[in-house]
Amino acid sequence: MTTLPDLTISSLSTAYQAGELTPSSLVKLLHAKLTALEPSAVWIHLLSESELLDYARELETKDPADLPLYGVPFAIKDNIDLADAPTTAACPDFKYFAKESAFVVEQLIAAGAIPIGKTNLDQFATGLVGVRSPYGVPENACVPEYIPGGSSSGSAIAVAKGLVSFSLGTDTAGSGRVPASLNNIVGHKPTKGLLSCTGVIPACKSLDCVSIFANNAVDAQKVYDVASKFDPADPYAVENKLLPEAAPLGALGSTFRFGVPHASQLDFFGNEEAELLFFNTVRKLEAMGGEKHTIDFSPFLDAALLLYEGPWVAERYVAIEDIIQKNPEILHPVTRSIIAGGENLTAADAFKAEYKLKSLKRIADETIARVDFILTPTIGTCYTREEVEANPVELNSNLGYYTNFMNLLDFSATAFPAGFYKNKMPFGVTAFAPAFHDAKLLDLATKFMEDAPCISHDCSEVPAGWNPIVVCGAHLEGLALNWQLTTRNAKLWKKTQTAPLYQFFALPPVGDNIPPRPGVLRLAEDNEDAIAIEVEVWLIPTDKFGSFVANIPAPLGIGKVKLKDGKDYPGFICEPYVLKDPINGAKNISHLADWRKFIS
Amino acid sequence: MTTLPDLTISSLSTAYQAGELTPSSLVKLLHAKLTALEPSAVWIHLLSESELLDYARELETKDPADLPLYGVPFAIKDNIDLADAPTTAACPDFKYFAKESAFVVEQLIAAGAIPIGKTNLDQFATGLVGVRSPYGVPENACVPEYIPGGSSSGSAIAVAKGLVSFSLGTDTAGSGRVPASLNNIVGHKPTKGLLSCTGVIPACKSLDCVSIFANNAVDAQKVYDVASKFDPADPYAVENKLLPEAAPLGALGSTFRFGVPHASQLDFFGNEEAELLFFNTVRKLEAMGGEKHTIDFSPFLDAALLLYEGPWVAERYVAIEDIIQKNPEILHPVTRSIIAGGENLTAADAFKAEYKLKSLKRIADETIARVDFILTPTIGTCYTREEVEANPVELNSNLGYYTNFMNLLDFSATAFPAGFYKNKMPFGVTAFAPAFHDAKLLDLATKFMEDAPCISHDCSEVPAGWNPIVVCGAHLEGLALNWQLTTRNAKLWKKTQTAPLYQFFALPPVGDNIPPRPGVLRLAEDNEDAIAIEVEVWLIPTDKFGSFVANIPAPLGIGKVKLKDGKDYPGFICEPYVLKDPINGAKNISHLADWRKFIS
Repeated sequence: MTTLPDLTISSLSTAYQAGELTPSSLVKLLHAKLTALEPSAVWIHLLSESELLDYARELETKDPADLPLYGVPFAIKDNIDLADAPTTAACPDFKYFAKESAFVVEQLIAAGAIPIGKTNLDQFATGLVGVRSPYGVPENACVPEYIPGGSSSGSAIAVAKGLVSFSLGTDTAGSGRVPASLNNIVGHKPTKGLLSCTGVIPACKSLDCVSIFANNAVDAQKVYDVASKFDPADPYAVENKLLPEAAPLGALGSTFRFGVPHASQLDFFGNEEAELLFFNTVRKLEAMGGEKHTIDFSPFLDAALLLYEGPWVAERYVAIEDIIQKNPEILHPVTRSIIAGGENLTAADAFKAEYKLKSLKRIADETIARVDFILTPTIGTCYTREEVEANPVELNSNLGYYTNFMNLLDFSATAFPAGFYKNKMPFGVTAFAPAFHDAKLLDLATKFMEDAPCISHDCSEVPAGWNPIVVCGAHLEGLALNWQLTTRNAKLWKKTQTAPLYQFFALPPVGDNIPPRPGVLRLAEDNEDAIAIEVEVWLIPTDKFGSFVANIPAPLGIGKVKLKDGKDYPGFICEPYVLKDPINGAKNISHLADWRKFIS
Repeated sequence: MTTLPDLTISSLSTAYQAGELTPSSLVKLLHAKLTALEPSAVWIHLLSESELLDYARELETKDPADLPLYGVPFAIKDNIDLADAPTTAACPDFKYFAKESAFVVEQLIAAGAIPIGKTNLDQFATGLVGVRSPYGVPENACVPEYIPGGSSSGSAIAVAKGLVSFSLGTDTAGSGRVPASLNNIVGHKPTKGLLSCTGVIPACKSLDCVSIFANNAVDAQKVYDVASKFDPADPYAVENKLLPEAAPLGALGSTFRFGVPHASQLDFFGNEEAELLFFNTVRKLEAMGGEKHTIDFSPFLDAALLLYEGPWVAERYVAIEDIIQKNPEILHPVTRSIIAGGENLTAADAFKAEYKLKSLKRIADETIARVDFILTPTIGTCYTREEVEANPVELNSNLGYYTNFMNLLDFSATAFPAGFYKNKMPFGVTAFAPAFHDAKLLDLATKFMEDAPCISHDCSEVPAGWNPIVVCGAHLEGLALNWQLTTRNAKLWKKTQTAPLYQFFALPPVGDNIPPRPGVLRLAEDNEDAIAIEVEVWLIPTDKFGSFVANIPAPLGIGKVKLKDGKDYPGFICEPYVLKDPINGAKNISHLADWRKFIS
């Protein structure tokens, strides 16, 4: 293999078990790609090729079938220790070399995963914007002008840009969900305590969670299964509970109940498109069998206010008390100003807030007990880097509107993609439920994404787990062979044209059961006869691509088709023999350049 | 009925169902007794006879068999609301009239229990001594010079002196256990949140528990069953959990495991007798089938230190912030000085202590998981009122050595009697286990007390649930018919003499199967022939007294025998006909005055 393979865990697993890929070959390709992309502000520390090969060779003494994450590359937020690598929490002067990996990292490595590097973050995991780091701002994976989201900015973008299969973030106020939403990926914030925080720099120790980013919820679930091992050394760790009400929902179409905040309690911060996207998502869930229940969101919002207006800021102060007292100048100015506020809060304030929170939790628990989960936008709107620079605290706070209460109220939550704005930014939603509902939420996200994958017509990156296929004839939307795509759960990604390099033919008919089909012939770069053909690019689930290809009869085949943006995608090509047959010859329809025009 | 009946719940229930007693007759007798005893400093407020009769008459429209606590009188610590009665928390200027009863009081009244009054306490439930109240110091039920223990002083003593069947206390640091130990009764501190705190004045809101005092653990269990109803309006309330490991231990003699702190970690504050009494108790548990495991007690002790040295004092401050700020002079000076310390603690302190506690709890949980329960003294020593007056804070603190950690670590605990000091003060132990082990602990206490009831040779009060029986012949310890007592689980209470009012006879033999027996004949007050007879007073469980009496053949019977202290107790009397039979006549052995001398 000379190009980086699809990094979906199941694809990697198949390739390893088939002997088509080795960890060493993967990490070499990956390391070459990552270093070529630098500087990206995604990484604070990348492992060297030789370090990566050490992990790879260790794995190669083992059977790929024995390890659930065999050879799966992952990224680690730089407030989580990786043995023999520096930890900075995005504060260069705080840097230390970790002797041991965090407990959760150890579990992943033991299961075969390969750590690639440590990712950028809002300093000391304080912020939801992803711009509060002296290591720069990682570029949003969808629209570069937008903030990446934080605090787990680098971890989210490493996944969204296909640099790793999954990554670890942390999530206290929303750091594992906000950047997932802003980069069109899945962000799972587990039940507090299910993923150990041993070896994680605390932000708000009583609320911190290690979180999981992945391109799809199936991968997130696989990582969660490995990572959620009970750690007796973490005083905040809890053992998992199998609650009957937390069993995954039934098959699609079976009924379930979901809560949606009363319309007056939803805040899109003036973004009407977000509101439309949210209610589209609600309708999709209803179409999946969901019964919508309007809930009173006020106890959740009141709890959210406690996070930064209440005493929990004192936990952030405790976490870096030494720095604030001795070297405050080494901190990011926004981070410093927020955390310094924690010094003057009284214990009486802390207990009063705890009482208030307890009261709110009782009401929130009663509300959530009436449904299978509650659905909200993950964030009410998106902000550009420029907007956040101009108003760093208020806009950061807006981003936490739907996230800040989650750990205070001890819920589990999965953020997942649910559409796109016209400007190509992704829109995401969060489903949340009581503690220990992790598997149920991840299963819901899987069903939702399979049923309604969130594919931008313009997004330049192919989502992981999907293969693009360029079609220009009977497979076009609504035409005779389109069912071969839709029955494989393929989705129309974009309508575009090829590069102006082709001739377009109608193939000679071959029988009653086979509809008319076109043939595409690529010409030399400077051929004057070449035209651009109207095409559609469909995305087909990776695991269903093979059977699609296998069914294609000669003279057609799947090769690469160059589109007008210069990129090559898999698509229909045609063996030239049939085009040159003088008797049953194909008909040149290049002047039409559009199969729909030909057949109409 | 003209005298107050035995107030054990089962005795009352039998009497009510047999129609021998009505709630009205009981409350009249009780009210007369209570008012005659005033002032006692036990009560801050006693209900009037007419108020009590209102409760009684309401009950009389119902079937005694339908209500588990039908007509059972109880006392309420005066930081718990009773509708239409004043609540003071032992701070006269804080007094208000409660419109509604506390949730837990409502449950008890609905189950048939009759509230008798509101009891004295250490002001605002701050203290373990029972002397910090402007309403005076209730007298210790065993030795008046000693402190009653607190903060639930009045509630403990109302039970210990047989004025009510049970009482409610509260227990944050040990207020439901320390006074139980000092007054020879059972004090159950339930799992935090199982008894609602709605309508209870907070001391340390996140730690407060309503607790139960009773003369035996069977009654405490009955009250617990009614009182532990989930209250959704209390944010700290929790629903009960049926944990397999919390099932009651097997029958006596089946094995169980109990933890005992390492000897170096036990502190008896110089009281060597307490140490002996504790290890006697350990041996009794071993004789019952217990396997002793020495445990490291340091995480428990470290947690205990956090209670007053850590930020939880700020909760006490929050609870009465208004008073401290506006009218500090209305507070007891010791209470004021303790609680005022809560003002200056920071939120950072609070979170640091919370982290430390979490770490300690993890170790403590691992320790306690290895045994069925842990046994400690309830208090390491006893103090007189004079000693506490001279050193009010340190001695109070000593009393919390084995209790302060309990709610911080979220355990359930039962304090129960386990012996007496030579000076007649009672000694008590506490068995504790994780949350939701309430029934297991109460069952253990029941088995322990049945097997080894804690009977002072000198205690002037008959323990509730037991009937005294004066014996002077074949039923004496070790003699021919003593088995009729021991097989009924009776215990030797004291060896004494009758008043000098009797003649003593050896009855004529009646057959091979019946051993020689004495007869006791009471003479007129001024009869010169009257002597005092050596007797033993045994205590027999109330429910087994009837069958004992039924088996006694003529000419003997059970009447009343007057002892040298002037009190009448049930005991063997003799029909005079046999004493005067000239042929087979009884033999006057009054000159011996002692059956053992006669038979030897």
